[in-house]
Amino acid sequence: MTAKVYVTLKSGVLDPQGSAIQHSVELMGTQGVSDIRQGKYFEISFEPGMTKSEASATVERIAKDVLANPVIEDYRVELATDS
Amino acid sequence: MTAKVYVTLKSGVLDPQGSAIQHSVELMGTQGVSDIRQGKYFEISFEPGMTKSEASATVERIAKDVLANPVIEDYRVELATDS
Repeated sequence: MTAKVYVTLKSGVLDPQGSAIQHSVELMGTQGVSDIRQGKYFEISFEPGMTKSEASATVERIAKDVLANPVIEDYRVELATDS
Repeated sequence: MTAKVYVTLKSGVLDPQGSAIQHSVELMGTQGVSDIRQGKYFEISFEPGMTKSEASATVERIAKDVLANPVIEDYRVELATDS
């Protein structure tokens, strides 16, 4: 069982890192890009014995308490039973 | 038209940040997590007039040249015509 967690800045929050990347992309001559925003991505692997509901509760807790700052960030969780 | 780019460390590459997160998660009392790896995530928006093939070529070039270090990282691109 693995989970993927995507953490993105909320839409109203300034993203200077994304703006810097966009600026670099423009300086390198690429046209047509209107916005770049950077987020974080985590792959979490669980021990084999874990059920889907346990894994779901665990990854939600990890995402909320450790990976994302809920004041300025949103997160999205995907569970996959690829074991 | 938007694109999502996921950048992850190749599987043989040490991920000290992921290990630190995993250690924190264990210290907070969460059981059953066998591995955490951190990656990067980018959302790229394109100007309205862009075709899918142009956007695809552009995002591939940005991912390879700017967002990922191909020596130690893999990247994956998803295009979505949500405009």
